[in-house]
Amino acid sequence: MINIPNKPRRGRPPKVNRDNQDTKAELIRSGLEQLTEFGFTGSGIDQILKRVGVPKGSFYHYFASKEAFGIVVIASYEQYFNQKLNRYLLDDSITPLCRISHFVEDAKVGMIRHQFKRGCLVGNLGQEIDLLPLSYRQILINIFNHWQAQISACLKLAQQQGQLSPQADCDLLAELFWIGWEGAVTRAKLTQSAQPLESYHNHFIHTLPK
Amino acid sequence: MINIPNKPRRGRPPKVNRDNQDTKAELIRSGLEQLTEFGFTGSGIDQILKRVGVPKGSFYHYFASKEAFGIVVIASYEQYFNQKLNRYLLDDSITPLCRISHFVEDAKVGMIRHQFKRGCLVGNLGQEIDLLPLSYRQILINIFNHWQAQISACLKLAQQQGQLSPQADCDLLAELFWIGWEGAVTRAKLTQSAQPLESYHNHFIHTLPK
Repeated sequence: MINIPNKPRRGRPPKVNRDNQDTKAELIRSGLEQLTEFGFTGSGIDQILKRVGVPKGSFYHYFASKEAFGIVVIASYEQYFNQKLNRYLLDDSITPLCRISHFVEDAKVGMIRHQFKRGCLVGNLGQEIDLLPLSYRQILINIFNHWQAQISACLKLAQQQGQLSPQADCDLLAELFWIGWEGAVTRAKLTQSAQPLESYHNHFIHTLPK
Repeated sequence: MINIPNKPRRGRPPKVNRDNQDTKAELIRSGLEQLTEFGFTGSGIDQILKRVGVPKGSFYHYFASKEAFGIVVIASYEQYFNQKLNRYLLDDSITPLCRISHFVEDAKVGMIRHQFKRGCLVGNLGQEIDLLPLSYRQILINIFNHWQAQISACLKLAQQQGQLSPQADCDLLAELFWIGWEGAVTRAKLTQSAQPLESYHNHFIHTLPK
């Protein structure tokens, strides 16, 4: 006799569970797109649900609140962005400063692909910080600190390899990189042009103490 | 006989006109505060009216729409900001580069005074550009171009006075100044600290080609 209950389940998981997982993932993806384009305040739950095609009532089945949803969306963006940063900044086939340039080039291509409608989610949220749930401030600061540490590590490697002055304050330069970068992304969105990203990047690399 | 109708009117103007003018000016001032703190999307007409204490219905007596109101608020901010820029950048009692530093110092004091809640209205609106009325994009680009021309003129004067390399591209440096500045203001709001403004300013001045 085949003991059906104990048989290892093969093939697709039970439909209801799979759907729940899929729907939750789709809601996060939809939220990611919506928030990156319109910010938190400008993004209604309705629009996010509409993109996924699920009824309004089901949102709170997956998330306790818009605040809780936003935190998951930010974490998802952070994960996506960290993978991107690691792909470029840890690429030991090229010099450390070239890695930063490759990251900028990738971001530029991404903004062009989305017709300069999508900026940086973390930058967007930073801009509207006084409208956001209180818990978001430290989350966003931590993300910037983490990104800063990654650029700083890259600059320190450039220092070790003699491409950057031993006197350079890599932590400070890394902080300034992101401060200016968010300004450049915002300007690229406004002017619908990659030129602010290019000018900013050239200036940053060119003015590094050699 | 004293001809009362032709007598030049002295003292306060007729009450009804004065009130209209005052109310309109107060609505603009309230909108300026609200939009600088929360952006356009995050600012409801209700909140703006509430600050002034006028009934909801009367808003459309003064402005055709929220879009039209926003345009007047932006123009008001532009006028205020131009006065500030002129006060610092045309101050011929100090060197051109010191004038930029004085402007930054004033902005820093202003942000501290408002507990880092108020950023730059034009920067805020630039961030949420894809949610704004279409007419706003060119208005904001024009304002940045104007600010850029003012900083560029200051840098060109520094060039004439030998404080800046003759090879420096002053228009490009001025554009980069504002790109980075908006990033620094956003970061100052997020971290509730003047340090990003100071670090950014020091770096900008320090990396100018001498």
